[in-house]
Amino acid sequence: MKFVIQRDELMNSVQDVMKAVSSRTTIPILTGIKVEATEEGLKLTGSDSDISIESFIPKEEDGIVYVEQIEPGSIVLQAKYFPDIVKKLPEKTVEIESDEHLKVTIRSGGSEFHLNGQDADEYPQLPQLNTEDSFELPTDLLKNLIKQTVFAVSTVETRPILTGVNVKVEEGYLNFIATDSHRLASRKIPLDAENNNLKFSSVVIPGKSLTELNKILEGTQDSIQISVTENQVLFRTKHLYFLSRLLDGNYPETSRLIPEQSKTIVFSATKELLQSIDRASLLAKESKNNVVRLITKQNNQVEINSNSPEVGNVTEEVAAKSIEGDELKISFSAKYMMDALKAVDNDQVKIEFTGAMRPFIIRPIDDDHILQLILPVRTY
Amino acid sequence: MKFVIQRDELMNSVQDVMKAVSSRTTIPILTGIKVEATEEGLKLTGSDSDISIESFIPKEEDGIVYVEQIEPGSIVLQAKYFPDIVKKLPEKTVEIESDEHLKVTIRSGGSEFHLNGQDADEYPQLPQLNTEDSFELPTDLLKNLIKQTVFAVSTVETRPILTGVNVKVEEGYLNFIATDSHRLASRKIPLDAENNNLKFSSVVIPGKSLTELNKILEGTQDSIQISVTENQVLFRTKHLYFLSRLLDGNYPETSRLIPEQSKTIVFSATKELLQSIDRASLLAKESKNNVVRLITKQNNQVEINSNSPEVGNVTEEVAAKSIEGDELKISFSAKYMMDALKAVDNDQVKIEFTGAMRPFIIRPIDDDHILQLILPVRTY
Repeated sequence: MKFVIQRDELMNSVQDVMKAVSSRTTIPILTGIKVEATEEGLKLTGSDSDISIESFIPKEEDGIVYVEQIEPGSIVLQAKYFPDIVKKLPEKTVEIESDEHLKVTIRSGGSEFHLNGQDADEYPQLPQLNTEDSFELPTDLLKNLIKQTVFAVSTVETRPILTGVNVKVEEGYLNFIATDSHRLASRKIPLDAENNNLKFSSVVIPGKSLTELNKILEGTQDSIQISVTENQVLFRTKHLYFLSRLLDGNYPETSRLIPEQSKTIVFSATKELLQSIDRASLLAKESKNNVVRLITKQNNQVEINSNSPEVGNVTEEVAAKSIEGDELKISFSAKYMMDALKAVDNDQVKIEFTGAMRPFIIRPIDDDHILQLILPVRTY
Repeated sequence: MKFVIQRDELMNSVQDVMKAVSSRTTIPILTGIKVEATEEGLKLTGSDSDISIESFIPKEEDGIVYVEQIEPGSIVLQAKYFPDIVKKLPEKTVEIESDEHLKVTIRSGGSEFHLNGQDADEYPQLPQLNTEDSFELPTDLLKNLIKQTVFAVSTVETRPILTGVNVKVEEGYLNFIATDSHRLASRKIPLDAENNNLKFSSVVIPGKSLTELNKILEGTQDSIQISVTENQVLFRTKHLYFLSRLLDGNYPETSRLIPEQSKTIVFSATKELLQSIDRASLLAKESKNNVVRLITKQNNQVEINSNSPEVGNVTEEVAAKSIEGDELKISFSAKYMMDALKAVDNDQVKIEFTGAMRPFIIRPIDDDHILQLILPVRTY
């Protein structure tokens, strides 16, 4: 194998596939990056067997030459060293060559590295997905769907299914749902007619996979193609394949958690409320629960307070846009509320309560597609 | 005590004094920040008993009012909470008030904090230094003196005196010297005539103190005043007092370590050499020594190489500006060499060797005031 490649292109691809490489894998060869040169260009692969990422650098695109002097072949290079080497090479182009003894030479300017490679035949084959059952989304919309839900997945393994995001197709909508059983985040988008005959109805994608995918994807309006099979999901852009396993098991039916009527509705500016809750939680650094209390007052005032006997207490007055319905005192996790308010993605927020002991709902004003639900905390 | 203050000014002062506050102190009240309001303005103090920092915010300066409605008094506030509170308050001004029960109220906009304070009388008094024996330097020059030497102090406590920087007055020069016994960094500057009658000749300032001081000081040409007593040093700018204890004991005489003649001299571009050594050390991540080898070649070429049998090897060719004297092969710590080259602060560097087993010297070209010395490593 041999090729000469633009260093910056190689660096970007290496950084992308590195998102899938873990140093703690039980399969030694997966601590490496597979490098494969073909007549079409260069393909890099990283995998921890849960997530696999392939990045392709074409020989030439839009009149720009990225890879030259290609002699096809493949090798696996240690991910511990290869990215740093590429990053620090002195020249704009890099020559990489391997011989029959798996010795790899990397040359750039006055710099020459000799590395011990591993046999690419020992690297696991990625499953070939049947990509018939696929649909497309703008990349920036997918990134928003992820950002607005994935923070709410469970981080404990007691119910593994809750560590994933439930992706559902229902009544012409694509719905992303995450819950750790204390709070729930969901967002749905209408599906285009062309995407409307999807065969899958509900899958669960590991939260970690979506977090890594979100890091790699650029916020462009270019389409990303999503293909779902029984136990895998593939996200595909022009030069990137991102393959993740799906979680086994049935995701709980969450729709019954969502209260259908409300007794108190607060309309507020999102940022002011978020900052008040942030401040009210400052003295509760020690306690994991980080609980604050919300009290509706006269004249559309909302009070947020918290009390940490040893340290002191805080009272925040927030001028709500309006308060409808019953008076209310309710306690909840400041962290959950801040996560929810950040995910709402709107200047104005509508919060619907059904009493101090019932879950409450946070939504952007005039938009039912984003829904955040939080279970209150009993404080007496 | 009561006052109303500009939040940004308060924040900056809090961040400065926090550099001295440690959560691991054995004196509980030192986990707090002392806040003292006088008719002149507000004084904040933080200390871990090794370092003490005072920051002063004048009531008014250059026609700008910083502190208003002052009722003199003092209190100690927990450093764990106070900085975050100040940072996140909603309005540009903050009102702080304490009562006779040490209860403190902090108000800003709709936000009101009640904190339990501690009695300021229990906070240790900072020693009043006799500041007669003092001299002045431009602040940016002091920052450079620190940066070019402090990295070379010892980080192990086997010889505590080596964890400090030796500051000496000698033959009209002020000299900063640091060594961990494997390498040495020094820089001297000529003293002005007015600074030339200093009574101290040699003190040792803890490296940690200088590192914290460097973080606080802005790189301006304003003067900083330095006062030295038997066991303390005080750095003083217009609104900042930085007091550090000195290290007890005699600093070793280092001048005899510096070879007086050389057998091989390499002149090179600093950055190219630095980057080559950085790359050559990449494969030695595992080994703590991080040793690379330098070999002089024909035609003013320098080869830097390293070999990690399991991973591979690197060879770097660097075009030196010139090489004078004997041929040379020498091994040394890549980290020490990179630290030294960064401290040289010049595009061109002069390296003087006296054989493979003798310490060698790195200096900026045409400037004898900065000197970096490294002991080679035996590799056979």
